[in-house]
Amino acid sequence: MIVVMKPASTAQQISDVIARVKSDGYDAHLSQGEQHTIIGVVGESPTPLREENYGTMEGVEKVMRISAPYKLASRHFHPHDTLVPLNGSHMGSKKVLIIAGPCSVESREQIIDIACQMKEAGATALRGGAFKPRTSPYSFQGHGEKALQWLAEARERTGLPIVTEVMDTAQVPMVCQYADVLQIGARNMQNFSLLNVVGESQHTILLKRGMSSTVEDLLMSAEYVLSHGNNRVMLCERGIRTFEKATRNTFDVNAIPVLKNLTHLPVIADPSHAVGLWEYVEAIARSAVAAGADGLIVEVHPEPDKAISDGRQSLKPERFKAMVQQVQRIAEAVGRTA
Amino acid sequence: MIVVMKPASTAQQISDVIARVKSDGYDAHLSQGEQHTIIGVVGESPTPLREENYGTMEGVEKVMRISAPYKLASRHFHPHDTLVPLNGSHMGSKKVLIIAGPCSVESREQIIDIACQMKEAGATALRGGAFKPRTSPYSFQGHGEKALQWLAEARERTGLPIVTEVMDTAQVPMVCQYADVLQIGARNMQNFSLLNVVGESQHTILLKRGMSSTVEDLLMSAEYVLSHGNNRVMLCERGIRTFEKATRNTFDVNAIPVLKNLTHLPVIADPSHAVGLWEYVEAIARSAVAAGADGLIVEVHPEPDKAISDGRQSLKPERFKAMVQQVQRIAEAVGRTA
Amino acid sequence: MIVVMKPASTAQQISDVIARVKSDGYDAHLSQGEQHTIIGVVGESPTPLREENYGTMEGVEKVMRISAPYKLASRHFHPHDTLVPLNGSHMGSKKVLIIAGPCSVESREQIIDIACQMKEAGATALRGGAFKPRTSPYSFQGHGEKALQWLAEARERTGLPIVTEVMDTAQVPMVCQYADVLQIGARNMQNFSLLNVVGESQHTILLKRGMSSTVEDLLMSAEYVLSHGNNRVMLCERGIRTFEKATRNTFDVNAIPVLKNLTHLPVIADPSHAVGLWEYVEAIARSAVAAGADGLIVEVHPEPDKAISDGRQSLKPERFKAMVQQVQRIAEAVGRTA
Amino acid sequence: MIVVMKPASTAQQISDVIARVKSDGYDAHLSQGEQHTIIGVVGESPTPLREENYGTMEGVEKVMRISAPYKLASRHFHPHDTLVPLNGSHMGSKKVLIIAGPCSVESREQIIDIACQMKEAGATALRGGAFKPRTSPYSFQGHGEKALQWLAEARERTGLPIVTEVMDTAQVPMVCQYADVLQIGARNMQNFSLLNVVGESQHTILLKRGMSSTVEDLLMSAEYVLSHGNNRVMLCERGIRTFEKATRNTFDVNAIPVLKNLTHLPVIADPSHAVGLWEYVEAIARSAVAAGADGLIVEVHPEPDKAISDGRQSLKPERFKAMVQQVQRIAEAVGRTA
Repeated sequence: MIVVMKPASTAQQISDVIARVKSDGYDAHLSQGEQHTIIGVVGESPTPLREENYGTMEGVEKVMRISAPYKLASRHFHPHDTLVPLNGSHMGSKKVLIIAGPCSVESREQIIDIACQMKEAGATALRGGAFKPRTSPYSFQGHGEKALQWLAEARERTGLPIVTEVMDTAQVPMVCQYADVLQIGARNMQNFSLLNVVGESQHTILLKRGMSSTVEDLLMSAEYVLSHGNNRVMLCERGIRTFEKATRNTFDVNAIPVLKNLTHLPVIADPSHAVGLWEYVEAIARSAVAAGADGLIVEVHPEPDKAISDGRQSLKPERFKAMVQQVQRIAEAVGRTA
Repeated sequence: MIVVMKPASTAQQISDVIARVKSDGYDAHLSQGEQHTIIGVVGESPTPLREENYGTMEGVEKVMRISAPYKLASRHFHPHDTLVPLNGSHMGSKKVLIIAGPCSVESREQIIDIACQMKEAGATALRGGAFKPRTSPYSFQGHGEKALQWLAEARERTGLPIVTEVMDTAQVPMVCQYADVLQIGARNMQNFSLLNVVGESQHTILLKRGMSSTVEDLLMSAEYVLSHGNNRVMLCERGIRTFEKATRNTFDVNAIPVLKNLTHLPVIADPSHAVGLWEYVEAIARSAVAAGADGLIVEVHPEPDKAISDGRQSLKPERFKAMVQQVQRIAEAVGRTA
Repeated sequence: MIVVMKPASTAQQISDVIARVKSDGYDAHLSQGEQHTIIGVVGESPTPLREENYGTMEGVEKVMRISAPYKLASRHFHPHDTLVPLNGSHMGSKKVLIIAGPCSVESREQIIDIACQMKEAGATALRGGAFKPRTSPYSFQGHGEKALQWLAEARERTGLPIVTEVMDTAQVPMVCQYADVLQIGARNMQNFSLLNVVGESQHTILLKRGMSSTVEDLLMSAEYVLSHGNNRVMLCERGIRTFEKATRNTFDVNAIPVLKNLTHLPVIADPSHAVGLWEYVEAIARSAVAAGADGLIVEVHPEPDKAISDGRQSLKPERFKAMVQQVQRIAEAVGRTA
Repeated sequence: MIVVMKPASTAQQISDVIARVKSDGYDAHLSQGEQHTIIGVVGESPTPLREENYGTMEGVEKVMRISAPYKLASRHFHPHDTLVPLNGSHMGSKKVLIIAGPCSVESREQIIDIACQMKEAGATALRGGAFKPRTSPYSFQGHGEKALQWLAEARERTGLPIVTEVMDTAQVPMVCQYADVLQIGARNMQNFSLLNVVGESQHTILLKRGMSSTVEDLLMSAEYVLSHGNNRVMLCERGIRTFEKATRNTFDVNAIPVLKNLTHLPVIADPSHAVGLWEYVEAIARSAVAAGADGLIVEVHPEPDKAISDGRQSLKPERFKAMVQQVQRIAEAVGRTA
């Protein structure tokens, strides 16, 4: 941590800060400049360093953190890529894995039918929502446990593991009975109670980036899960909210190489939510893999104009097949397979 | 709803859209322009109109919603201001009410001491966190039920009702035992499971705007609570996330008159989170009331440099008192009291 | 400047950085921590310190600037408020000054008529566009020099000084002949050629914040003007671009007290562009003055439904009069006059 | 255009709007709904339809535009790809073209040396700044005409055409003497005076997206150039400003397929500014081409730690060569060459 003193700070204020640093158990190094005095705070202590407190001391202009606030998620402490098992492969390995399926599980027939098509098209896992976080209380909220049962049946038929969202701590035990991967949606990325409970569950977690969360916020939320000894966590870039309204969200493709650099966890992309319009989903899927994504999660629906949710961004199965082939070519161009 | 057809759309595509509108139970009005054919969809039907589905039909360029997606929260359906009772006054009345207290309840002594000071300074209710949503799993997470008990004790001493955050559905029954107002934090504004449970609780709700939520998103989240027959809801503008980093958030003061126009619910402001630096809190508190806010929620701490959380944005009690006086003068300047 | 070394940086890399610091003429102070080595760079030298260069050196994790990059605009170097003369008063003084008029000068009659009404309503200066930066090449681009002549005529009649936009270096000499204050629009805030030329002109400058410019960017643009020895500069907050689309822009009211703290230059607000809808302009005008704005610039048009530009955000003259009275009450509530 | 009336609008207000539509020379189609009356405005007339004016009429809730505001830039009016000649190839053709060079032209030797290396590495054109828009007036502002002469010399040696920025209308004639392509920087994207003058020049234009400009704003700025009969315009996505600060800007890769759909003009990407850190430039270059970019513009410097500007995002020549090879593989994977 670095404490920058105001140009007009007094010797007393400077020594107060240094005294506080020492009483917190750290070392203080002073750099006296023309304008600014800088105090470098280093060392280790059981007392946490609270920047905010130093920020309110007399004579302090600003406080700057040096170390990343996450540890278990950091590549610095864990240099090797974490591989998350999925259907006999591993997310984070050389192979780019694709999770696909409808936004919502609408019926038993629908999900079994799509599952078979996804399997044939080369998907590694099946996605489908049983509990749906909807902006409106009047929109379809998901078929709940019935949908989970249908998903399980689809898994039996196809062998595809199931990725499904859990919205609330109370749902976790039930969803764990059926799902292979628990998805934490963008709106719940900082639902810390939920992160703690899914961390405890030891299930595989797919953690989506919140729409206004920074890369660091995402890693801090992963840290919640990891702090329970659960390191089967995949991070998912799904677009952020910006001023641009030509697309549903702005896909932050920069975040992919940045995350691959900062963390050992696998990083996947959701091109469907990232752009929100099916005609652009293939292009964004390609861009994500070209930038280094380890996998994709894609919305597919046989009849988007009848989909109960997210029809506008759902690929039809034949278009999804074309996407898979394009992604394979890109994967090979970057020295991977798909 | 309005469906805009592509310039190159065919007569068949246009009649397919019209047929769909009719089969959904609505009327379709056609405006044939040089470039664009526009189909106005009006009428009422039990079938919900899903814009996304129309958006995927052949020949459709875009679909535009006309009506607001919220109903119970809308001033159109409920023209008179909703008054939310608070400590013998009402939030939403002519009187500007101020909720104040520390970010976290740190100890029994602390909260009782601050409560007495807040009461004396003119606060209407006491805020204090028992469960804290923290970005880092390693930060203080709140004293939990113990803190709720201390808050209750502070209420006994001062008569100030208690506003405290609830983070998870599982906590709602316990928090309801102690709290007068349940606060839904910015990070949980779209935790729809939680909104449903607090809606059912029939407790008074203080709903904070999410940091990347639009005004409409906020009203839709309020609609979740209202749809349970619970209309004691106060909305809170607390700053949004933008590119500007000189302050913690960007206080969207525009949202105050916009919300007062769109909804009958009271609208309050949180200048502490909105700006994040104590030296600017008074200015933002004044600006909020000048723009029409019905109340304020403000963080106060006797020793910000020792606060466990949010010290950087906490006013000291004497500064808070000065703020109250400034706010009173502004309230009078806009024809209110405080 | 502070250089933070990577945890894995070598002794050689550290000494290379120190050598570079010394060869640039500065002093380097080392703080060796558990994880990070921090190098504080202090002192003075004619060689500019380029953070970017240090950022690319081997072993460097990041480089943090300590000092503000602006000097002439900084309150630190110039603690007293700069007062900018305007029509016998001063922007930046205790009196809140209001500049008002139409977006575009549409005709001789229009501008003279409005000028008389603005004068009567208590405005200090008259605004009106002769050169209009329009998003579309097909929109009205302003009446040019003719409009400047009409503005001059309006000044003769009313005594109100003229504030008008200059869009290009080539227009500066002509606009200077007529205008009292040169306005630099939001889209030209970083047109550095223009800033240099208007700086040289020694005319009073009203510098609007760009819609995606930070407070620091705004001060750096002011620095361009100030560096020509022209310190008659008023800064104008006019709303920034964010994800929220309920209003045209998001008025960053936080910026007002922040700027008042960082700089000695007067700070005014443009509530018309900040919110973009006339029904909210009064509320935003009040909030700006409550937060500490030294003045306002407001769009007024007698027939907004016939205005050639910005009709949606223009107040009618009677509404403007009401706004002036509200602003006066707020000004008094914060110890000023209007 | 569509006019949506307020639920409480009167028959008189509706007929006033219709009368206005007719007096403007258009047809009005009425759709009477339960809540809202919708007026579809179609037809053609010499009178421009000003949405803002309708928006201020009594009883009007909102006005929605239907047609794109650009015409010459629209793929609808010009379905075939525009090919912009560059060094014997064409931007917008099957071949992905790469423009490369230093941020600033620092010396004659530097630019000639880099030009030779860029040519050898496979670049199609040479970039280099003679006039530099710098946030600080104290930063290096470019060597001006001398730099243009050095660029011309580098062209003579290598045959590489020159891409260089023009910042001001007054510079256009001089820059046209030397440059093959005039670059309009992000900060000048809405410098409409400059757009008019470079449009008139009939030189090839590289138009960079402003950091807070929408895709539509970018197309409107292109429309300015095109309206002068100059259709040799390349659009450049270079990252937008968002809340995320892990990278310099947020590369809006979505904009690439969206632009390719909306316009016939070639679309290129600037991965250097888009991410701002050299270690991620290759990944972003790959993602851009995978998403459909027609070309790239990349910053290269032999000694980034000595670069006068943008060192942090400049690739060393050997790294640039590696990038070119990666881009070639991606180009082939999407059925193109590079």
